[in-house]
Amino acid sequence: MKSFIDVSKNSDFSIYNIPFGIFRYNGKTAACTRIGDTIVDLDACQKSHIFKGIDLPEDIFHSENLNSFIGLGKHITSPVRIRIQEALTLGGALDNDTFRNADIFINADRVEMLLPLNIGDYTDFYSSKEHATNVGMMFRDPNNALLPNWLHIPIGYHGRASSIVVSGTDIRRPYGQIKSPNQDNPEFSLSKELDFELEMAFVVGKDTALGARIDVNEAEEYIFGLMLFNDWSARDIQRWEYVPLGPFLGKNFGSTVSPWIVTLEALEPFRVAGPNQEKEVLPYLKTEGAKNYDIHLSVALNDNKGNNKVIAQSNFKYMYWNMCQQLAHHTVNGCNVRIGDLMASGTISGPTQDSLGSMLEITWKGTRPIVMPDQSERKFIHDEDAVIMQGWCEKGEIRIGFGSCEGKVISGL
Amino acid sequence: MKSFIDVSKNSDFSIYNIPFGIFRYNGKTAACTRIGDTIVDLDACQKSHIFKGIDLPEDIFHSENLNSFIGLGKHITSPVRIRIQEALTLGGALDNDTFRNADIFINADRVEMLLPLNIGDYTDFYSSKEHATNVGMMFRDPNNALLPNWLHIPIGYHGRASSIVVSGTDIRRPYGQIKSPNQDNPEFSLSKELDFELEMAFVVGKDTALGARIDVNEAEEYIFGLMLFNDWSARDIQRWEYVPLGPFLGKNFGSTVSPWIVTLEALEPFRVAGPNQEKEVLPYLKTEGAKNYDIHLSVALNDNKGNNKVIAQSNFKYMYWNMCQQLAHHTVNGCNVRIGDLMASGTISGPTQDSLGSMLEITWKGTRPIVMPDQSERKFIHDEDAVIMQGWCEKGEIRIGFGSCEGKVISGL
Repeated sequence: MKSFIDVSKNSDFSIYNIPFGIFRYNGKTAACTRIGDTIVDLDACQKSHIFKGIDLPEDIFHSENLNSFIGLGKHITSPVRIRIQEALTLGGALDNDTFRNADIFINADRVEMLLPLNIGDYTDFYSSKEHATNVGMMFRDPNNALLPNWLHIPIGYHGRASSIVVSGTDIRRPYGQIKSPNQDNPEFSLSKELDFELEMAFVVGKDTALGARIDVNEAEEYIFGLMLFNDWSARDIQRWEYVPLGPFLGKNFGSTVSPWIVTLEALEPFRVAGPNQEKEVLPYLKTEGAKNYDIHLSVALNDNKGNNKVIAQSNFKYMYWNMCQQLAHHTVNGCNVRIGDLMASGTISGPTQDSLGSMLEITWKGTRPIVMPDQSERKFIHDEDAVIMQGWCEKGEIRIGFGSCEGKVISGL
Repeated sequence: MKSFIDVSKNSDFSIYNIPFGIFRYNGKTAACTRIGDTIVDLDACQKSHIFKGIDLPEDIFHSENLNSFIGLGKHITSPVRIRIQEALTLGGALDNDTFRNADIFINADRVEMLLPLNIGDYTDFYSSKEHATNVGMMFRDPNNALLPNWLHIPIGYHGRASSIVVSGTDIRRPYGQIKSPNQDNPEFSLSKELDFELEMAFVVGKDTALGARIDVNEAEEYIFGLMLFNDWSARDIQRWEYVPLGPFLGKNFGSTVSPWIVTLEALEPFRVAGPNQEKEVLPYLKTEGAKNYDIHLSVALNDNKGNNKVIAQSNFKYMYWNMCQQLAHHTVNGCNVRIGDLMASGTISGPTQDSLGSMLEITWKGTRPIVMPDQSERKFIHDEDAVIMQGWCEKGEIRIGFGSCEGKVISGL
């Protein structure tokens, strides 16, 4: 498959991808996809009758978010994606001068990408065994690093939806209460231990009713697609506040999400089996077949003074608990989910030293600092540092990716 | 002040109240208030030019929630409430036959009250010292029941917005993972320790930007009003899941809110000083003057077979941390809040045995069961039991209340 639009070999946006996003350009906000470096205005596509024969509501793409489109269901969204793919193929419906001049195509540099969802609720899981083990070793008992419930439950908690921002938004260093071990009382201070967490998040594509549950074997029907997710964390604030009710101000000052939702259909060629689950899980969590995805992940730190360093390379396939298990667990008590809900994986750490998904783990609580190209050290993130996450899949000639999930830390006010 | 509409002496809905809600009747959904047993359709009021001179957008009340109205700001919502009060007073603008026949007034029995808000994010605090102490005594160290952070931080965590339902909605008993101390592994079971939590919640009335904070002395400007709140809790599910990231499935199967938002203006006569704060709080949490409210609270258990018993009588004035402190803390790291966000108090327990705000505390983990009028016992809540919360304020001739916050537990599926 090949598009009539140029796509460089390492582009995230090959003809095999066709992700969904929301752009703003020239006063217009609408849904789009991207091919190579070209944004494709899906509202303009619909007005040009590209989706003829598919039961699409008028103006469905002329929206500030994708919720209504996603809510149409996969029996609509999946044919729409295939139709776009066909239309963008060499000799396809859009491959002619009429359309080239119909304001359908815009250079990616010229648009602003927006948060593509109205996120009702955001849940953060804790599903990487390596991450949970590392944290347990650092803060609890190195010999019993995993808590007793961890191998039985895809542990998760509710996060803040309002402060999820799209890639490119600056993150202000938070103030908060911080108590060091040698102090009797907390002090009010800027966080000195600002961290990232390398995560992926899936987008819920179908509502459930309160009281209903999602069967683990049908859970994929409820997953529209995936995004990169940076769960910024202020470790010093978190440490003092989190007992007994969990993280709060240490997390909710901001989370960054990549602008593109890559569909489960696009990820299909990259399915792989997950890690062996060491304890037998309860029946409602039993899955069969390959439920993980082989998605390469990287994190770079850029100090905006010319120093850039890749500080982590991980993979989504390391997740101990898969998304189907997360969703089945989340709803097993009858908790309802809604289209546009975001469910993040938790920090995705791998088994090796170069695959750790947070500064906390990479520097082991600051004891082994990262050395930047200019020899400056980082225990945690400095002001003006940007954290840049990338995610991509490769198999033979097929390459698809997620675009960047970037955020720069700016000084606290 | 007296209305031309009959208001019984013990009504929650005196002329001094004028709360806001959303009703459905005869195919119409709109904002309303209530006086005695009469619903007042505010959309019909607007169409009858009752709000002349106030800068109200057309059709503002013809809505499925109050978010847009609240978002107009107190400089609008406060005069609107006073105008309604005047119009409902004996000899006021609505006191004539023309309006009586204009579909403005509906008997309260005939309407369905709906959840009046689009709730973006829901936060639950843990601000009753008595409750935190009781829980600490039961589950941790009786001699060090309060955790070290509790007297410094208005502890809170994020809850689930999607499963907040309006009074009258049945609550299905949840399934989940439960592990008893004598078992090696958890089992999948219906919760056997279903509980209520007596809480109040405030409604955020003004947006903040990400990165901004709310000054504790200006926090009341951001509080539109209050509601009763039942934070249903499955103690057995919660106990096994909550370490280290906090409550999740033990809470998110449902929360019940009363249908009426009682404004801060209506509560003004009932301001009282809060408890003395034992440790000096950090400057960003320092408040002056009376920041608590004297709101009587009661909880009744009704088995729907003729047995009804009041099992708790508490008061909102017991809160150790006030709402201004909660809001200042929530935003001190730059976390943004949005109109319609709900922030609940945490269980409101008082200092005496009859003022405990949960079954867990009343029965002390099930060791001293409640005896119902028919001599049946309750350690936790049974199927078909309804929990009925009431809240009211009284001072001289002024009485205002919140209406009922009710929910019946139905068997798990």
